[in-house]
Amino acid sequence: MTENMDEEADSYFNCTERERAAFELGIKLGALFHQFIGTPVSEKNIDILRKAMEKTTERQAFVKKARVNIIPRGLEGRKKSAFFDYTTLSGDMLEATVEVEYKGIRATGRLKYIQELDYPLMYLENIR
Amino acid sequence: MTENMDEEADSYFNCTERERAAFELGIKLGALFHQFIGTPVSEKNIDILRKAMEKTTERQAFVKKARVNIIPRGLEGRKKSAFFDYTTLSGDMLEATVEVEYKGIRATGRLKYIQELDYPLMYLENIR
Amino acid sequence: MTENMDEEADSYFNCTERERAAFELGIKLGALFHQFIGTPVSEKNIDILRKAMEKTTERQAFVKKARVNIIPRGLEGRKKSAFFDYTTLSGDMLEATVEVEYKGIRATGRLKYIQELDYPLMYLENIR
Amino acid sequence: MTENMDEEADSYFNCTERERAAFELGIKLGALFHQFIGTPVSEKNIDILRKAMEKTTERQAFVKKARVNIIPRGLEGRKKSAFFDYTTLSGDMLEATVEVEYKGIRATGRLKYIQELDYPLMYLENIR
Repeated sequence: MTENMDEEADSYFNCTERERAAFELGIKLGALFHQFIGTPVSEKNIDILRKAMEKTTERQAFVKKARVNIIPRGLEGRKKSAFFDYTTLSGDMLEATVEVEYKGIRATGRLKYIQELDYPLMYLENIR
Repeated sequence: MTENMDEEADSYFNCTERERAAFELGIKLGALFHQFIGTPVSEKNIDILRKAMEKTTERQAFVKKARVNIIPRGLEGRKKSAFFDYTTLSGDMLEATVEVEYKGIRATGRLKYIQELDYPLMYLENIR
Repeated sequence: MTENMDEEADSYFNCTERERAAFELGIKLGALFHQFIGTPVSEKNIDILRKAMEKTTERQAFVKKARVNIIPRGLEGRKKSAFFDYTTLSGDMLEATVEVEYKGIRATGRLKYIQELDYPLMYLENIR
Repeated sequence: MTENMDEEADSYFNCTERERAAFELGIKLGALFHQFIGTPVSEKNIDILRKAMEKTTERQAFVKKARVNIIPRGLEGRKKSAFFDYTTLSGDMLEATVEVEYKGIRATGRLKYIQELDYPLMYLENIR
């Protein structure tokens, strides 16, 4: 392993620092969605799951901050069952805001289910 | 939705209560592994990730208890990097014990990486 | 690695052969669901995704046969978009039949979305 | 649903077209890795799994082309077992090249395990 892993990694890129920041942000949102969709969710574990999603995202390269919100859709009717009182995390239940910083450039992105699109959109909200 | 979801679910099964308990236990171990393998892990988020894995497993049907241990393999050399100081959860890092109960039958299973097999084995340790 | 990995693995189990078959079947259904839920699906890739799910399930220990069906729910309205004409695989789109054999015992299980339960039920259909 | 989902989606972004292309590329690489890591792999299903990963990536927004290579690491010693002759897909087995196009801007990214970093690096190889 080289003394400087960060410079080693940089040497593979051919783009501006802003483009790099945008790229890194995209990775984190794609990862968050596809890692955790399908996880069993009930009212009793939403908070710990949400926090674990934030903390595992925040450990990734260049992430400054991650905030996750899980909307408990589809859990109401389940209370009649002693055993099937949970659902699995789906795209319309998940909201996230992730901020990355690469060499002073800050990029903020969001994952949000957009009703008009019926789609969990990942978008670059801000870069500067 | 029927008044009794649990009886409705039972009606699909053709097996003994012990076989049902063994089957349900297998589901939970298979789910735990394939849901979380690949999650970013560093020394700073192991504990919250471990707890989220326990709590999401414990919400599933018939689970009485879930214990998860994450062995921080492959994190040592990473300290030289400011940004790449984590790894992704792999089968040889993960240990779990899950207990299910179905109509009084208790089945306990484990997920453990077995060196001789180079394989993360899921096994039924006890059923009674 | 021992000469006989299969006997080595067996030594960890404390249950009957039928319970083992039921347990192994549960693992495969839990794995199938949690590995692939969230995968991007459109009419153009359903068939290859379905086959990959079957073949990766069939490679696992003791599996004799796996059949997967993906129901293309929620793809109709998407045709208005050039770019967002797909959805992500969810529990109500997925059906599977998996057959395992352990020491002559055959167990067949299914994953099927049950409308009355609003739940993708995994059940043991047959063991003999 | 609006007549034009693509314009609706665009309205959420605040960045240049090049930054958008870089962001979209990052999403696809993050998704590919975290969706499929953990999938059972043997010599007999590598090809179909590889193709399914390509086709599901190519269906996503703005992707022109996806190429995936799976390096069969760690499968050699497994031939002694009739049942455990597979492994699970890990970061050091996976290589991918993904090309996205957004409003005429083409961005090409790669996922490759870099030995010196002991890390499956996702990088932006080219944007123009």
